[in-house]
Amino acid sequence: MPTVKYIPYNKLIDLQAGTNLLAATGQSGIYLEGDCAGKGTCGKCRVRIVEGDTVTPTESEKKHLSQSELDTGWVLACQRPVNSNLTVEVPRHKDAHSRKTTLTSGAKLLEAEPAIQKVALSLERPSVKDQKADLERLLRTADQEHLQINLRELTALPALLRNNRFKVTMVHDDYRVISLEPGDTSDQLFGIAFDIGTTTIVGSLIDLNNATVIAMAAATNPQNVYGADVISRITHASQVEGGLKQLQGKVIDAANQIIRQLLKQSGIVRDRIYEITAVGNTTMSHLFMGIDPTYLAPAPFIPAYGRTLEVEASQLGLNINPSGKVLFLPNIAGYVGSDTVGVILATNMDQRKDNCAAIDIGTNGELVLAAGGRLMACSTAAGPAFEGAEIKHGMRAAAGAIEAVNYSNGQLEVITIEDAPACGICGSGLIDAAAALLQAGLIEPTGRFVNPEENPERIPKEFLGRLRPSQVGYEFVLTPAVESDTGEDIVLTQGDLRELQLAKGAIYAGLMILLKEADLKISDLNQVLLAGAFGNYVRKESALTIGLLPAIPPEKIIAVGNAAGDGSCMALASKTMRRRAIKLPEKVDHLELSTRPDFQDIFINALSFEFSDKL
Amino acid sequence: MPTVKYIPYNKLIDLQAGTNLLAATGQSGIYLEGDCAGKGTCGKCRVRIVEGDTVTPTESEKKHLSQSELDTGWVLACQRPVNSNLTVEVPRHKDAHSRKTTLTSGAKLLEAEPAIQKVALSLERPSVKDQKADLERLLRTADQEHLQINLRELTALPALLRNNRFKVTMVHDDYRVISLEPGDTSDQLFGIAFDIGTTTIVGSLIDLNNATVIAMAAATNPQNVYGADVISRITHASQVEGGLKQLQGKVIDAANQIIRQLLKQSGIVRDRIYEITAVGNTTMSHLFMGIDPTYLAPAPFIPAYGRTLEVEASQLGLNINPSGKVLFLPNIAGYVGSDTVGVILATNMDQRKDNCAAIDIGTNGELVLAAGGRLMACSTAAGPAFEGAEIKHGMRAAAGAIEAVNYSNGQLEVITIEDAPACGICGSGLIDAAAALLQAGLIEPTGRFVNPEENPERIPKEFLGRLRPSQVGYEFVLTPAVESDTGEDIVLTQGDLRELQLAKGAIYAGLMILLKEADLKISDLNQVLLAGAFGNYVRKESALTIGLLPAIPPEKIIAVGNAAGDGSCMALASKTMRRRAIKLPEKVDHLELSTRPDFQDIFINALSFEFSDKL
Repeated sequence: MPTVKYIPYNKLIDLQAGTNLLAATGQSGIYLEGDCAGKGTCGKCRVRIVEGDTVTPTESEKKHLSQSELDTGWVLACQRPVNSNLTVEVPRHKDAHSRKTTLTSGAKLLEAEPAIQKVALSLERPSVKDQKADLERLLRTADQEHLQINLRELTALPALLRNNRFKVTMVHDDYRVISLEPGDTSDQLFGIAFDIGTTTIVGSLIDLNNATVIAMAAATNPQNVYGADVISRITHASQVEGGLKQLQGKVIDAANQIIRQLLKQSGIVRDRIYEITAVGNTTMSHLFMGIDPTYLAPAPFIPAYGRTLEVEASQLGLNINPSGKVLFLPNIAGYVGSDTVGVILATNMDQRKDNCAAIDIGTNGELVLAAGGRLMACSTAAGPAFEGAEIKHGMRAAAGAIEAVNYSNGQLEVITIEDAPACGICGSGLIDAAAALLQAGLIEPTGRFVNPEENPERIPKEFLGRLRPSQVGYEFVLTPAVESDTGEDIVLTQGDLRELQLAKGAIYAGLMILLKEADLKISDLNQVLLAGAFGNYVRKESALTIGLLPAIPPEKIIAVGNAAGDGSCMALASKTMRRRAIKLPEKVDHLELSTRPDFQDIFINALSFEFSDKL
Repeated sequence: MPTVKYIPYNKLIDLQAGTNLLAATGQSGIYLEGDCAGKGTCGKCRVRIVEGDTVTPTESEKKHLSQSELDTGWVLACQRPVNSNLTVEVPRHKDAHSRKTTLTSGAKLLEAEPAIQKVALSLERPSVKDQKADLERLLRTADQEHLQINLRELTALPALLRNNRFKVTMVHDDYRVISLEPGDTSDQLFGIAFDIGTTTIVGSLIDLNNATVIAMAAATNPQNVYGADVISRITHASQVEGGLKQLQGKVIDAANQIIRQLLKQSGIVRDRIYEITAVGNTTMSHLFMGIDPTYLAPAPFIPAYGRTLEVEASQLGLNINPSGKVLFLPNIAGYVGSDTVGVILATNMDQRKDNCAAIDIGTNGELVLAAGGRLMACSTAAGPAFEGAEIKHGMRAAAGAIEAVNYSNGQLEVITIEDAPACGICGSGLIDAAAALLQAGLIEPTGRFVNPEENPERIPKEFLGRLRPSQVGYEFVLTPAVESDTGEDIVLTQGDLRELQLAKGAIYAGLMILLKEADLKISDLNQVLLAGAFGNYVRKESALTIGLLPAIPPEKIIAVGNAAGDGSCMALASKTMRRRAIKLPEKVDHLELSTRPDFQDIFINALSFEFSDKL
C-alpha cells in the first residue's frame, strides 16, 4: 500500500495502489485547485513530485505545463495514479477569505425578531397536592402548553429541574422546545446564516437578541474536487455509488469548519447556537440536504423539491446545539435557487413597485426583474468564467489575483489583490482586461485580437511584444514571468475572450428577455443591482464597455454586495423576513430560457463587443 | 472466560468470570422466572446444574429448594456467580400466550377512520412548460400541498417517480408524508396496537382499511430480569449506569419479536406497517420511550411528562416502516397511565352519564369511577399478588397454573389451565382457593388459617392432612406432589393469604374513596367493570366472597377483557377515538391515595375477610 507524504502540510496518507492522486488528496482534506473534476482539461491541480517515481508526462500535462516545470517535477494530480511512495509538494491554497474586504461584521441587520426565543423560568415545586408532570409544569409556567419536545430534551428534564432548584431557561420556537438549560441563559441566543456557494461558503454568526452580525468566516466549497460547476457535481452524485453522500459530507465538513472558526472568533460555545439558515443554488441545496439532484441536470431540469426544508442540526451532523434547527430557504426553479430568494429579500425587490433588475453572478448567473410589482427570474449559464473556470489563468478572488486593469494615456496598469505578485486573473480583472484592451484597440468588436502581423499599425508599440501568437490565436501578456508569482507569463488568451463573450452575452440576453416579457425597455429600468462579491469589484464602466450590462447611466448601477448571504442573515434574524422568504417562490415567475428561440437570437447578437450603441 | 451451555435451548454463551448466572441468562435472551430482581427472596429463578462445579447452597437456596432438589443440582440462578464452565438446564418457559383464549382476533373494532391514509396517484410528467419540482408536483396532484416530508422519503422521490411512470402511492397522515411506494398499494394499510404491560406485552395487527384485528401475539416483558414490579425497574433505570437504555432495549426487543410474529402469521411485509399505538402504565411509557422515570418512585410521584408522545419508528428502533409513526397514549398521573386511558376509551366511560366503576388489575391496580358525567381515577399497590409475585407458588396464567378451585358438597376441586399437571397458582386460582377455604371454614375472617391442633373439630376430616404447619403459620396443600408437575406439593400459605388480603383491601378501599369523593354509595353503582385478562378469569362470586369487590349483585359485575389493549386498538383504528384518548387526561380527576388518612382507615378495615355484610 503506497504512502503519500504531503509537504508543507506534513501529512501522511496510505492509499490503495492505483488510486488517483487528485481524488486521494481531496479525500485527505488538503485543498487542490481544479475545475474539471479530474478530466485533465483545466490544468489547475498542479503539484510537484519531490520524491518518488517520475513518469512520462501525459498529453494533458504537456499541454498545461512548461518544459521547465515538467523537468522540475510538476505534474497534474488528476493524471497520476499512485503506485509507489511519493512526497508531494502542494501549492499553498489561497482561500477565498484572503480578500478580507468581502466580509463585514458588526452590522445591525434589522429589528430583532428571532424565530427562536429564550425564556427564564422559575417553576413551582411539585407536591402531592400538585402532581403535574415535569413537562406540563414547565410549559404551564411558560404559558406555552402547545409546544412539542423531543425525547433527548425530555429525558434530561427531571434531573435538570431538580439539580437547579426548578430554575431553567427554555429555548423554543413557535412549535417546539429546542433546548433546556440550567439557570438563566437568556442573554445568549445565537444563530448562523450560511451562503452555500458552488465555489465559496460563507457563514455569519448572529446575536439573535439584537440582530447583529458578530463574526464572519468563509471557506472554499470542498466539493470542488468533484468539479467546479454544478453539472459535474450532479453527475458525481447521480452516477458514482455513494457520490451524493460524499458531496454532502464535503459541504457539511466545510460548514462545520466555519462553525468552529466562528465559535473561536467569538468565544461562544456551540450549544448556544440554536439555528442555522442557509441559501444556495438549487443544486447546492439538494447536496447540502442530501437529496438526489439527478434530474436537475437534463432538460426539463426538475428539482426534487422547491419548498423550505427544516430539519434538526443533528440530522445533518452540523455541530451546533444538537436539537437546533436548520432551515434551507426555498428554491424557485432548477437553476434559480434560494440564493436568489436571498437576493430578492435583501434588496427588497418583492416590495418595490418600480422597475428594477438584479444580477447575481456567482458560479452561475441569476437575473431578477421587478416590473411594477411583478417579479420574474431566470438563470443563464454565465458564471464560471467570472470565477476563473475555463479561463487559462483564471482564479478566484484571492491574494495575487489580477483584479483591475486600467487603460489611460496609452498605458496599461495591472493591479492585484493585496498587491501580491500576480498569479492569475479573477472575474473583475477579466472584465477590466477585456475592456482595457478594447479601449486600446487590441481587440476587434467581434472579440478577436487584432492580428499584429497583418495590422502592425494598429498596435501601440509598447504593446507590440505583449500581443503574441499562441497555440490557438493570439494572447496578451498582462504580467511578464519576471514579475509574476508563478514564474510564468500571466496572459489573456483568445480562448479566454471567447469564454467572456459567451458569459456576458448570456447575461445580457437573459436580461433582455425578462424586459421583453414585462414589456419594458432598458430605459425603463430605475436601477440595476449587482449582487455577489463579484458585483462589489467589477467596474461598472468596464462592464458597460464590454456589453455585460445594458446601456444605462452608471449611476443607476448599484453594487449590493453579497445579497444572497444577507438574505440568509435576515431570514435568521427576523420572522417577518423569514415568512416573506418562504412565500417568495410563489410570487416569482420563472422563465426557462433554454428553449426560447428569441433568447438564442438575442444571445448571438450580444456576443459581440460592439458597444457603439451604448449610453 | 467460562462458557455456559443452556439445555434444552442448545445455546452457548461466554461470560466474564464472576458474572451472575441470572443476569447472564437474561442477557442471552433466555427467559427465567423471577420477581425479586436477583435479591434471592422470591425463589423463582430455578435452574439445574447438569455439568460443572456444584457449590454449597446459599441460605436463600436452602430456604426455597428442598433437599432432594439441592441433591439433584437445582440452584437459584441469582445466587450463582459463574466461575467455570457450566451446563445448565432451564425449565421450559410457559409464556403468557399459552392461555390462548385471552387473545381474540378477527374482531371488527369500529368504523375504519385511520389517521394514516393511502392515495394512489398518477402524476403528469414534467416538461419545460411545467417545471414544478417533484415534491410539489406530487402534493399538488394529491391536493395535499401542506404536507411535510422527511429527507429519507424526499431523496428517493425523483427515481421512484421516473422508475414507475409517475404512478405511485402516497402514505400520509394529516401532517406529513410517511411513505411513497411504486404503483398502487392502497389496499395494504396496516398498524399495530400494543399494550405494554409490566408483565406481559400484547400486540394486535390491524388492517386500517377496515379496522379489523387480523393477528395477535404476546410475549413476556423481558424487563422482568430487573424486577417484577415497576419500582425495581425505576430503581434500575435511575441508579445503574446505562440502566434506562437496558430497560428500553428489552421492551423494544420484545415489541420487535411480537412484530416479527405478527408479520409471519399474516404474511404482511414490515414496510406496510405504518403506525404503532401503545398504552401502558406511566412507568412502562417512560421506559418504552427512553425517558428518565426517576421521580416517579418517591413521593410526590412526578412523571417526566403526561401528554401523548409521537415519534418516528426508526427513532425507537421498532421494525416497521422506518418512517412509520409511534404514538404512546397519554398518562393521567404517576400511577395512572395510558393503560387506564385505554380502559376508559374501550368501555366508553367518558361518555356515560350514569355511575359505573372500572377496575383494572394488572401488575398494578387502577380504578376509575364515572359518576354522573364526572371521571375520577386512582391507583392502588394491589396487583402483583394476582400475577404471582410474593405468592409462594404464584405464577402467571399459563398451562399448569391452578386457575379455579371449587368447593361444593364438602369437596374441593382444583382445576388447572389446559388441565396440565399443576405447577403453581395464578391470580384467579388464588382468589378461588381463598374463597373455597373460607367457605370450607378453614380460614378465619381475620385471614388466619384455623389452627387444626387447637380446633380439630372445625376441620373436615378429608382436609385434615392437607392443612399443615409450615415455617410461618399453616399452609394448605392444593395439589399433592404426586400429582404436580414440579414433584412438590403446591400449597397456599399463611403468607399468601396475607398478600391477598393486602391486595384486595387496597382495591376495595380505593373504590370506596372514589365513591366517597363522588358522594355515592355502593348501591348507586350501575355496573362494576373488571378489565384485564384477570377480569376474564376471576369468578365474581369468589371475588365477592373474599371482599375484593363491594357487595353488589353479581349481574352488575361485567368482565370487559383487555380493555387497555382494546383502547390502544381503537386509538389506532379511529381518529375520533384517538382524539378522545389524547384529551382524556384533562377530563379525569386523579386522587392520590397515599397521603389520605381516610384511605388508611378504610384499607385496614377492608383487610378482613368478614363478608357477612355483603349482598
